[in-house]
Amino acid sequence: MPSTEQFRIGVLGEGTVGRAFIELIEARGHSVEQLTGKRPVITEVLTTSRGSFETIVAESDVVVELIGGTEPAQAYVSKALEAGLPVITANKQLIAQHGTALSALAHEHGVALRFEGAVAGVVPIVRVLTDSLAGSELERVHGIVNGTTNYILSAMAQMGIGYGEALAQAQQLGYAEADPSDDVSGKDAAAKMAILARLAFGADVALTDVRYEGIEEITSEDIAWARELELALKLVGTAERCDDGIAVHVHPALLYPGHPLASVCGAFNAVTVESPAITEITLSGPGAGGAQTASVVLSDLISIMCGQTQTLPALKRYPIVSDVKSAFYVALEVIDQPGVLAEIATTLGGQGASIKSFVQHGLGDQARIVMVVHPLLQSRFFAALKELSELPALRATPRAIRVLDAEFV
Amino acid sequence: MPSTEQFRIGVLGEGTVGRAFIELIEARGHSVEQLTGKRPVITEVLTTSRGSFETIVAESDVVVELIGGTEPAQAYVSKALEAGLPVITANKQLIAQHGTALSALAHEHGVALRFEGAVAGVVPIVRVLTDSLAGSELERVHGIVNGTTNYILSAMAQMGIGYGEALAQAQQLGYAEADPSDDVSGKDAAAKMAILARLAFGADVALTDVRYEGIEEITSEDIAWARELELALKLVGTAERCDDGIAVHVHPALLYPGHPLASVCGAFNAVTVESPAITEITLSGPGAGGAQTASVVLSDLISIMCGQTQTLPALKRYPIVSDVKSAFYVALEVIDQPGVLAEIATTLGGQGASIKSFVQHGLGDQARIVMVVHPLLQSRFFAALKELSELPALRATPRAIRVLDAEFV
Repeated sequence: MPSTEQFRIGVLGEGTVGRAFIELIEARGHSVEQLTGKRPVITEVLTTSRGSFETIVAESDVVVELIGGTEPAQAYVSKALEAGLPVITANKQLIAQHGTALSALAHEHGVALRFEGAVAGVVPIVRVLTDSLAGSELERVHGIVNGTTNYILSAMAQMGIGYGEALAQAQQLGYAEADPSDDVSGKDAAAKMAILARLAFGADVALTDVRYEGIEEITSEDIAWARELELALKLVGTAERCDDGIAVHVHPALLYPGHPLASVCGAFNAVTVESPAITEITLSGPGAGGAQTASVVLSDLISIMCGQTQTLPALKRYPIVSDVKSAFYVALEVIDQPGVLAEIATTLGGQGASIKSFVQHGLGDQARIVMVVHPLLQSRFFAALKELSELPALRATPRAIRVLDAEFV
Repeated sequence: MPSTEQFRIGVLGEGTVGRAFIELIEARGHSVEQLTGKRPVITEVLTTSRGSFETIVAESDVVVELIGGTEPAQAYVSKALEAGLPVITANKQLIAQHGTALSALAHEHGVALRFEGAVAGVVPIVRVLTDSLAGSELERVHGIVNGTTNYILSAMAQMGIGYGEALAQAQQLGYAEADPSDDVSGKDAAAKMAILARLAFGADVALTDVRYEGIEEITSEDIAWARELELALKLVGTAERCDDGIAVHVHPALLYPGHPLASVCGAFNAVTVESPAITEITLSGPGAGGAQTASVVLSDLISIMCGQTQTLPALKRYPIVSDVKSAFYVALEVIDQPGVLAEIATTLGGQGASIKSFVQHGLGDQARIVMVVHPLLQSRFFAALKELSELPALRATPRAIRVLDAEFV
């Protein structure tokens, strides 16, 4: 007869993560018991063909949602919280779209809602933001939060291959889906940045508040130019306080070699958190597969079994700022004739853009001008870029990519 | 009249961190109240000239120990735990020397003992190991856990200056103490690695179990050679499971460019945790000054105010393994004559050392041979090195530095 108290787990969904989690509970149940003093047992697994949600609610101490997608996950998670059961989920879509309402529901019923597995793979950023940094005023979060795009950009840089070839390789290795559009468009990263912004600032950030841009338009030439300047090109999500609001955006960005995200290569995730009190902390690790996600869910389970019932404070609505300052890299193909450079400088200056660094390469009767401009409001930068593209000396559409933290170099 | 419940904090010590903590409670008390539902108030501050420890024990809900050193800190912390009060400390010496006993005492009395500020600056590695990775079987922890030595080595590499000059610079900038011996000898890093080994493996690792070596003997030439091979030289602490035991050691080590610790420069700390379940996670951030440490202590306070009473499970005694495998970099100055290379290869082979990569530079009638040997037991490597140093063709004492994770390159 078991002498230890049981801790009963109802599992929703039995896909890759669900199966991995059930196996993990069998393999590590004894260690969990030693750690928590309770024996984890799975009471029931709900799939489309078997199991009863009512039984799970009636006979579990925690509900683990591993169905994925928003419905029926949202309905089940809401009902479980309303019934006073803590919930663990690794469902990014669910938390990105319904996280605010579900956290409020959890708070109202005094039970925990944990979702470490929903953001940044195995990197424990949710716990670090909610627990370790709970007392800090955070200013900015930068993240490489999509392993697929980071793999593609790394492959382009390291192997000198084009976007299409790098994508095909990522698909072959299982780092990209057959339909990669959510990843390469930046949409997946945008959802994760919305979640991180809520956690970092207590701000009620909706998915639609996040401006994003993907990597589909990035060329081998962009990467080659970046390398020439010793810059790394990454898809970077940023959530930051600015003026009286919050800005959340995802863009391809060039990073100087000293930036903590510059050396994050392959299918890795990494998040840098900045605040005056702590300066900056960076966490990095691989994007998660089924077994890793199950392991992250287990860490959430152990927290709940240890009686951690902390709920998130209610989110506040801040103005969403969409026009933020950024430094930019600009590449221009021009006719090599007197006065062109002056024209370019005047055009930029007219919008308040000042040049930080500048290189000109001759190409027969043409020239390529590559420069970095100091941070300015992006609306003004894009106005200058439009004017530049209309100069008669321009031979091709100008190319512009954001540069991260140029002010710190 | 205050409508919220108070949470009473007794503070021991009012040095740099103590003052910063008291200021932080004043500045951020309101946020803490919003987060926890309780209002933090400092009941009494104990210094050598004022305050009463008895009053603190009688009238506090938590004791924050910021005296530093082992005595009287150890006596106060023990008494507070015995009185059923949770304790927060940022005292590395205390935890390194008395952590096992104090954790057992905390466990016995069912109260929390938190010490995030004692290891790795602002990097929240204690919480990640105890909470986020509680369910994982960890295999290895690598850490750059001493900002002073990392600053010195970075300065030597980046500015091409010698050890003495880099140390003087670190002292001038406040990154090194007037008496830097605990840092540069590796002793400080060894204490932190003992703490990390306990947390990662639940192993009862004493300070005396950690073998360590410092950076005093590192020359500009070592750094120049390392750069030629594109390797970074860091003071790295390692805690790992091997055979049926645990090995914990601190050594200068060469890192390949892809290693997550290779890009950690300046007065930064970083820790990489490896396990089959999560692959690897890296956390990095600046070593902490007074204000940062106070901020870390505040995060521990918030956890306790949120009712987190998790105590560490009892530590187990594992055999301590001191002879571990490592790859090595070797530099030899030899007379350039036929047969020397064969002699060297035979000597290495006799101890089971096989050569992974090899470069020979002519220097007039001498030659410099630089090679990396595949991982082997260090006792056997050092036996081979001794034999090498006795070869008549050798013109100088051979130079050897460990290489991290050469097997992954």
